[in-house]
Amino acid sequence: MNPRPELRPGEADLLAQLRSISSEAGSHSPSRFTLQDLVPSLQIKIDACFLSNPYATDLFMDRLKSDMLDTGNLRDLLEFYPSQNSHIASLIASQIDVEQERVFVSNGAGEAIQAALHVFGGKRVAVILPTFSPYYEFLRPDQECFFYRLSSEDDFHFDGTDFVRFALENRVDTVCIINPNNPNGGYISSTSMRELLHAFSDMELVILDESFVEFAYEDELRGRLSLAPQLSSLTNVVLIKSMSKDFGIAGIRAGYAIMNPERVERLLSNGFLWNSSGLAEFFFRLFGEEEFQRSYAEVRLRYLDEAAAFFGELEDVAGIRPFSSKANFCLVRLDDTIPVDFLVPLLLVRHGVYVRDCRDKVGLEDGQYLRIAARTDLENRLILDALRQVIAECRTDQ
Amino acid sequence: MNPRPELRPGEADLLAQLRSISSEAGSHSPSRFTLQDLVPSLQIKIDACFLSNPYATDLFMDRLKSDMLDTGNLRDLLEFYPSQNSHIASLIASQIDVEQERVFVSNGAGEAIQAALHVFGGKRVAVILPTFSPYYEFLRPDQECFFYRLSSEDDFHFDGTDFVRFALENRVDTVCIINPNNPNGGYISSTSMRELLHAFSDMELVILDESFVEFAYEDELRGRLSLAPQLSSLTNVVLIKSMSKDFGIAGIRAGYAIMNPERVERLLSNGFLWNSSGLAEFFFRLFGEEEFQRSYAEVRLRYLDEAAAFFGELEDVAGIRPFSSKANFCLVRLDDTIPVDFLVPLLLVRHGVYVRDCRDKVGLEDGQYLRIAARTDLENRLILDALRQVIAECRTDQ
Repeated sequence: MNPRPELRPGEADLLAQLRSISSEAGSHSPSRFTLQDLVPSLQIKIDACFLSNPYATDLFMDRLKSDMLDTGNLRDLLEFYPSQNSHIASLIASQIDVEQERVFVSNGAGEAIQAALHVFGGKRVAVILPTFSPYYEFLRPDQECFFYRLSSEDDFHFDGTDFVRFALENRVDTVCIINPNNPNGGYISSTSMRELLHAFSDMELVILDESFVEFAYEDELRGRLSLAPQLSSLTNVVLIKSMSKDFGIAGIRAGYAIMNPERVERLLSNGFLWNSSGLAEFFFRLFGEEEFQRSYAEVRLRYLDEAAAFFGELEDVAGIRPFSSKANFCLVRLDDTIPVDFLVPLLLVRHGVYVRDCRDKVGLEDGQYLRIAARTDLENRLILDALRQVIAECRTDQ
Repeated sequence: MNPRPELRPGEADLLAQLRSISSEAGSHSPSRFTLQDLVPSLQIKIDACFLSNPYATDLFMDRLKSDMLDTGNLRDLLEFYPSQNSHIASLIASQIDVEQERVFVSNGAGEAIQAALHVFGGKRVAVILPTFSPYYEFLRPDQECFFYRLSSEDDFHFDGTDFVRFALENRVDTVCIINPNNPNGGYISSTSMRELLHAFSDMELVILDESFVEFAYEDELRGRLSLAPQLSSLTNVVLIKSMSKDFGIAGIRAGYAIMNPERVERLLSNGFLWNSSGLAEFFFRLFGEEEFQRSYAEVRLRYLDEAAAFFGELEDVAGIRPFSSKANFCLVRLDDTIPVDFLVPLLLVRHGVYVRDCRDKVGLEDGQYLRIAARTDLENRLILDALRQVIAECRTDQ
């Protein structure tokens, strides 16, 4: 058995450099721009770390071109102050079927997660593992984190009743739930989620992160599933929504949170003034527009189709085990014979395919995991080819 | 004496609408986008509320065109996640002659002000009036604000020794200073500021907001005056810097703060992940570039020349008294015979000129004040003409 795959000239240095950059980036993958600054020779062709619908990006770019570039209006968006939080909230409230007073517009979902945990979070916080790391990293120094671990043996199955028991047993006052969950894509049905939220109605804060909910569906019609319009009686719930994933615009930093109006007021009364950029305001105007939403609904379905096909093909790749996902990414576990610390950088160096090595994720210590986003149909095929090829080159049992 | 100026058909309704929008916007002027949403008939031709160098905006737009639009690279900036805070800090640190570990990149200066007051602020905060309202609005509920009032009678003169006495007398532990000050443009020389910072070296937090420092100069060479490189021994100082004013890019929301490395670490350890947009990262790359800085230095001097000429001409407008300013705006006091609640909306409705009515500013209760930004030479002349005309139409002593 070979201890490591055979490297081509120059690759050993490159791999060492990539590993050191990754370790400096902490618990998040370095952005493609950071990588390109630090390793100029690198050609990132497909960013499958990044969990977004690229067809929605096309849609946004078309409208940016027609409404802002072709008209010369772009300058105003970049030169002048954007509108304040509550005005931008007024542009989107009816589209999401929520009162304007319940909408807090944020600089990406991250800002809303930070605000909710810092301002409304209690002292004992339950977090389901594996998770998006800000849910434990953003805790205040006086907040204690209680990890509820899902098991890979059990396909990361989530049992609501058992989680409620865990929360009570540990006397937590704050609960964080991502649905579908990142990084494994597990999904809690709308019915179960409503039951869960009601079971937690005495908590100080319940965060429900629906950043990936647009990719989940419960029937053949594949309707959109957000619980946003149903939360007004649950005053402790803060619903978090990133726009980066479904609309493919992470670089704009647009998100929002839905919460009790008193909480919105509390946040805006001493901060968060002008926290949206001009482009975020432009995006939210489109988001509020029926025509844009109709076009978006089409590219959503196209992307869902292709993602499902991609996940199906991942099942057939030798050496990996994909977990079932209702999100737009797939968590896969590598055989022990495939060294992840070679596979991931070699995918990048040899094929320009950037996937997420999950070794830094708390809750995934029992094996080697990758998270792979669905991209366009063409890109998905290139990812599959690259993966098959590098796995064959990397296996140490040949 | 007429109680109010003569209005043309339709103007009374428009004025009532504008007043109600202003009052809903709280202590900040509504953005031009908000105004255009709410009063579609309005044509804002010159936004002299907005305190920026428009020639620097030209410079940025040129580079955006050549580097991003013409190359097709814009999409990547909008689609993918930007780099993390510390990587963007590394792009600008040497340009501002500060170690990277001391730089916290922020979503506009506002986010940095909020973070400094919320995370590092003590319980007793001294604020110099008049001021930028977030310095008192963003205080935590447990923080008490001590107002040190400058007097219009005295041309808003600031006496450092007296302010130190005030701070000691009130046992404040936190001090906020804007230099040049917003909204009056008063300036504390580098020498006096260093003395002041040393006198406050026992405070928990000293905020020095240099957002307008690029517009100040102390000699004929008009060199740039930031104290940023001189603060490493003053571990309690947080220097705040907006990029919106000098670089004319408020819509991008770019700013930074310089502080003790432990404080940067404290902020980044539980929040502020991905708080810059792709366009902010692009801007900061330009900011770190010698060629861009050389072009900027030229447009800075051109703008300073034209602003000085504009302020000189304001001296000759009958009915107003401009205060001396080392910033890129001028605070003016209106004669009692000119009703500000007519002047400001009539400038907008009749001439498309948007200036800042300062009646909502704490510390300016003793009269009627406007703050007027210097824009391009041509726009400055239009502002002067409009001002002369509407003042003549508004005076109640004719």
